[in-house]
Amino acid sequence: MPTSVKNLQYLKATNQASILRHLATMGPTSRVELAHKLGLSKMAITNLVADMIQDDLVFETDQKISHNGMTGRKSIALDIPDCRINAVGLFIERFAIHCNAMDIKGRQFYYDKLPIPPESDNAAAMEIIFRLLDRLFQKYSEDTFSGIGISSIGPVDLNSVTILHPTNFYHISNLPVGKFLREKTRLPIFMLNCMSAAALAERLYGNAKNCNHVVYLGLGSGVGAGAVINGNIFTGSKGFASELGHMSIDPIRGRKCFCGQRGCLETYTSTYSILKRLRYPSMEQLLKDIEANCFTDKAREELSTFYQAVRSAIIAIANIYDPEMIVVGDQGSQLLEPYLPKLQKELHILMIQHDLHDITLTTSAFQNQTSLIGAPSIIFDRIFSKVLPPFNGIKAS
Amino acid sequence: MPTSVKNLQYLKATNQASILRHLATMGPTSRVELAHKLGLSKMAITNLVADMIQDDLVFETDQKISHNGMTGRKSIALDIPDCRINAVGLFIERFAIHCNAMDIKGRQFYYDKLPIPPESDNAAAMEIIFRLLDRLFQKYSEDTFSGIGISSIGPVDLNSVTILHPTNFYHISNLPVGKFLREKTRLPIFMLNCMSAAALAERLYGNAKNCNHVVYLGLGSGVGAGAVINGNIFTGSKGFASELGHMSIDPIRGRKCFCGQRGCLETYTSTYSILKRLRYPSMEQLLKDIEANCFTDKAREELSTFYQAVRSAIIAIANIYDPEMIVVGDQGSQLLEPYLPKLQKELHILMIQHDLHDITLTTSAFQNQTSLIGAPSIIFDRIFSKVLPPFNGIKAS
Repeated sequence: MPTSVKNLQYLKATNQASILRHLATMGPTSRVELAHKLGLSKMAITNLVADMIQDDLVFETDQKISHNGMTGRKSIALDIPDCRINAVGLFIERFAIHCNAMDIKGRQFYYDKLPIPPESDNAAAMEIIFRLLDRLFQKYSEDTFSGIGISSIGPVDLNSVTILHPTNFYHISNLPVGKFLREKTRLPIFMLNCMSAAALAERLYGNAKNCNHVVYLGLGSGVGAGAVINGNIFTGSKGFASELGHMSIDPIRGRKCFCGQRGCLETYTSTYSILKRLRYPSMEQLLKDIEANCFTDKAREELSTFYQAVRSAIIAIANIYDPEMIVVGDQGSQLLEPYLPKLQKELHILMIQHDLHDITLTTSAFQNQTSLIGAPSIIFDRIFSKVLPPFNGIKAS
Repeated sequence: MPTSVKNLQYLKATNQASILRHLATMGPTSRVELAHKLGLSKMAITNLVADMIQDDLVFETDQKISHNGMTGRKSIALDIPDCRINAVGLFIERFAIHCNAMDIKGRQFYYDKLPIPPESDNAAAMEIIFRLLDRLFQKYSEDTFSGIGISSIGPVDLNSVTILHPTNFYHISNLPVGKFLREKTRLPIFMLNCMSAAALAERLYGNAKNCNHVVYLGLGSGVGAGAVINGNIFTGSKGFASELGHMSIDPIRGRKCFCGQRGCLETYTSTYSILKRLRYPSMEQLLKDIEANCFTDKAREELSTFYQAVRSAIIAIANIYDPEMIVVGDQGSQLLEPYLPKLQKELHILMIQHDLHDITLTTSAFQNQTSLIGAPSIIFDRIFSKVLPPFNGIKAS
């Protein structure tokens, strides 16, 4: 019966992926604790782990840990070897492309970056990507990695791994990154927009590790969000979900937005818009002046508008997504940092079911690096969801 | 190996649930077509269907249908017997409790309703529910049904099947409907808020049958939404998701809302708010006057504000959920009907990725009955998701 054999393999792979996920994101764990956390019998865990030890996916540490809630007996902790399962990350943002390499436990062991010169076109962008990969693969052979995760400025087409037409992205448009990369590498390639990738980074390795429902709000030169719902990244039907930046908070009299609406959140909360309106050269300068309390009235007003708009966004996120946690990231989150306790309080007063649950509001664990950490996280998420095997199979084939 | 046996049963049950779902929602289908639609081999379908025929879940109709895209050969269509798998629905709204009975193919074969007298408390509400069920079970024995689905005014606690504290709901508050019902019946009981239930009704039996991503926007005396994401109802972490009514479109200068914010969508789009501001006795009267073009300037202005607010909501839904379809329902959707083509056009201009995909905007297939049809749909959705077996097992036990 080939069908049932395939099905049993399927179940085994699913359970092994769950073990990998737990060890990679929650750290060393005993067999007993794994059985408890994953809802499997101790016998099942022992069998699954035995195979994983054989495959060098898991090893027994010297560490003995006591069972959760039990005293006395201690068990050997299992762990994943460092740099045993790795992924390449490409983070494509407006002014630069970043390349990193990370292991499944979230340890970044390589980082590189090249700027995107103004007026670049598709060919120029691909050349930068190829140069970054060449430099990486000179140091680490291709079969070190389980895949390449691409965290890109949106909009992107997830299925064809294509950057569609980001606004103000020089002459880069409809760039089929996946197609070109497949001519160069046999590694599996997956893409998400950089907001979704950031949400994954927080969920797997950041401040939202235990949360199945997380929204990441990115306040950068553009504004958007990424969401994890029931433990899975939420892409919508076509991959364009969570475009929070174009939720209008003043559709009649608000600021004009390039999208055609008025009053879009982005027009009040993007660092691009704030810097332009205040004629500041950089966020660094603005943050410095804020710290020195060296404000113009106009700046004070603009920051107050920023704060109010973010508050509306946070309340809307709470009411629409009902997450366990909201993580605010990217440069604009630094402007918000001093107001975070106040905002958390207002959220708990103003969200509609405020008396029935709490939603934790926090800033990103990775500061401005969340979308970068998100890039290899895309591959690990696929491994944890069993879409990808832990190894790329290039050597074997 | 008891584990693998359990696992094979699990896979069989999953596949049979998929067959049930297809036949129940898409109508009579041949084995070949089922194999094609569900991605299973024809042999697997034949085996699965044989068992289902034995259990009287499926029968061979007299009808022969040609395969999709093939000419010539025709195959016997399979169907589910009428009223073979049934559920009870309870729809608890502000002024009344409705009880219906529906089969898995979406045929309602029983309907009853009792008003909730003003000043009712928890005991009075439960008495009404019990009376409705007594009257139903006098006509159809309990084991006719696979479960009781409750579609209720929110907020509700899904796990404990409790109505929490709806605003202006007399003295009804923290009512553990599930606990009381379990003293009376052994049928499985599941609850959703009435917006989520409405989304399920549209997804299973209404205008969104083929859509895995649907948002239902309910414009009634309250305003809210329900969403199906990747084919599953989206509840959020605590069951309070999609509270669209409290997305603010004018947080600084907008109308005051009971939630503490200003400018909530609900203050512009709920029928309660519109009728109150225009001092109209009923929606019927308002709709009549609109048809007769018998408007005051104030009414014209109010309706224009209503339209603009709904437009903002629809665009926000498109940008946030990226659904395939948006279904507008409840009484307020009648006010919207004449503007629907215009709204669809504006949506396609103003949603952020408008050049990359279409989102269909439509009104509900069930007019004001969507949340009522949603109630038994909750049970069928659980059967299709294999959370519940097709039969309640009461007779067998």
